[in-house]
Amino acid sequence: MNFNDELKARTVHVNTVIKDYLPKEEGELSTIVSAVNYSMESGGKRLRPLMMECTFQMYGGKGTQIAPFMAAMEMVHNSSLIHDDLPALDNDSMRRGRKTTHREFGEPLAILAGDVLLNYAYETAMLSFDMVKNMPDQAAAWERTARAMSVLSAKSGLTGMLGGQSCDVEHDGHSLTERQLSFIYKTKTAALIEGSLMIGAILAGASEDQILKLEEIGSDIGLAFQIRDDILDVAGSTQETGKPVGSDVRNRKTTYVSMFGIDAARARVEQLSESALQNFDSLGAKHDFLRQLLEELATRRK
Amino acid sequence: MNFNDELKARTVHVNTVIKDYLPKEEGELSTIVSAVNYSMESGGKRLRPLMMECTFQMYGGKGTQIAPFMAAMEMVHNSSLIHDDLPALDNDSMRRGRKTTHREFGEPLAILAGDVLLNYAYETAMLSFDMVKNMPDQAAAWERTARAMSVLSAKSGLTGMLGGQSCDVEHDGHSLTERQLSFIYKTKTAALIEGSLMIGAILAGASEDQILKLEEIGSDIGLAFQIRDDILDVAGSTQETGKPVGSDVRNRKTTYVSMFGIDAARARVEQLSESALQNFDSLGAKHDFLRQLLEELATRRK
Repeated sequence: MNFNDELKARTVHVNTVIKDYLPKEEGELSTIVSAVNYSMESGGKRLRPLMMECTFQMYGGKGTQIAPFMAAMEMVHNSSLIHDDLPALDNDSMRRGRKTTHREFGEPLAILAGDVLLNYAYETAMLSFDMVKNMPDQAAAWERTARAMSVLSAKSGLTGMLGGQSCDVEHDGHSLTERQLSFIYKTKTAALIEGSLMIGAILAGASEDQILKLEEIGSDIGLAFQIRDDILDVAGSTQETGKPVGSDVRNRKTTYVSMFGIDAARARVEQLSESALQNFDSLGAKHDFLRQLLEELATRRK
Repeated sequence: MNFNDELKARTVHVNTVIKDYLPKEEGELSTIVSAVNYSMESGGKRLRPLMMECTFQMYGGKGTQIAPFMAAMEMVHNSSLIHDDLPALDNDSMRRGRKTTHREFGEPLAILAGDVLLNYAYETAMLSFDMVKNMPDQAAAWERTARAMSVLSAKSGLTGMLGGQSCDVEHDGHSLTERQLSFIYKTKTAALIEGSLMIGAILAGASEDQILKLEEIGSDIGLAFQIRDDILDVAGSTQETGKPVGSDVRNRKTTYVSMFGIDAARARVEQLSESALQNFDSLGAKHDFLRQLLEELATRRK
């Protein structure tokens, strides 16, 4: 199968897994559940659960314990999108070709939908504890599951995605120092990618060394992805990216490109991508599809 | 020691425990961390962690594994207060005698502070996993810790506190059916009280039967507390309660009193309180302070 066909097939499968874990629209909760599922079912690339399943397979992971974590990771991601779009934050009215959650359900319910979804990510991930009882080496399985849970919460939280967003929001409209820019870039996008690569490997029983290498790879790829975004805003075409070009300059946003120039930005993407792939090739296990996915993410044109 | 002195001493202790687990104000995160800690350090009765520690002691719980859960429960509670106060929800400018978080830090950071704090509750509770490794019967300790974690997330989430708030917010300004009122009352306040009583008992190794009885007691006390609130709004004095009387009537809010009348409401509080205390006395373990605390909560005058 070529890469694009495999990507399509894997995405279909990930969507099935996620759907299994969505809450049901019943009784007094039907409205809030439809708000939550409106966001969860609006498409999206499902990159995080996709990557998580790949590292799980790469280290010979078997069984369904990975499934609740795949859904949980996508829930954390979507909860952040719902709140990001709110009037007090980015004030976006469209996402993925549909009205944003607060435009469809009103601001009060959108705030609560984001909260419910973040919490539901943990409710969902915790279902993996029930599966431990049916696993052969229980002591090891408990430790791995607890570790995966801690990684999920750390990468989502204060020193991960939410901390990065907070720092970004705090300096909105002001120029950033190099330290702030670097912190935001390392957390906002990269943290969940790191977490996804790590959790798959953790649950499959990979070694500590391999897990830490995957964290580094996630960090490089996340950073490359973000800088590439800045480059596309300056040098891409609306036709390619599907969004207006030049918005960062108009909004006087500090980006990697505005701070270091486009040539340095391109060189940095190249370097991050090479470093990630070299690290990947030294992992002692192979996964051709994941390798190509990581490469595409770093060098994407849209 | 009389009840009030013991309450004071226990609250001081709970505050110390909570303080231990608060994030540090450092580097790029110092602003968001001060927003989070502004809410966490603004006082409050600390009822939930107080109750949790009581049931832990009641069943002979030893060691510090309860501590991260005590802090986590208060974090979940406070995260909900930060979001409740937002302009799009209750639009409150004062809480516990200080400006609300969004009035002090702005709406964007208040939204993120609520998210960070909810997530940090899980980051904190997960520290209890590290303690399992030093416990005697590891298999049992893993199971108990995982169960406590699942209860924390379930009582906070869609079928607990956040679901109740969502239903309440959804019908804001409209009258409620009896079913809706009952659902909101059973989840919004009672869920975290149930969870607190349960988690202490779970970590101390109480039996399933005892845990479920504590859940029922929490439900009765939470419901009584809420109905008592409605009664005070009609029949209390501003001097006693410290807040304006009659606001529910002015806001045309459906309450237990508006639906069933004040006599029925008083009778229901009496009945719930009696049922809770009877259940408590049948638990096979004693805790005089907790018994009196539950009684005070159901029959409080402010």
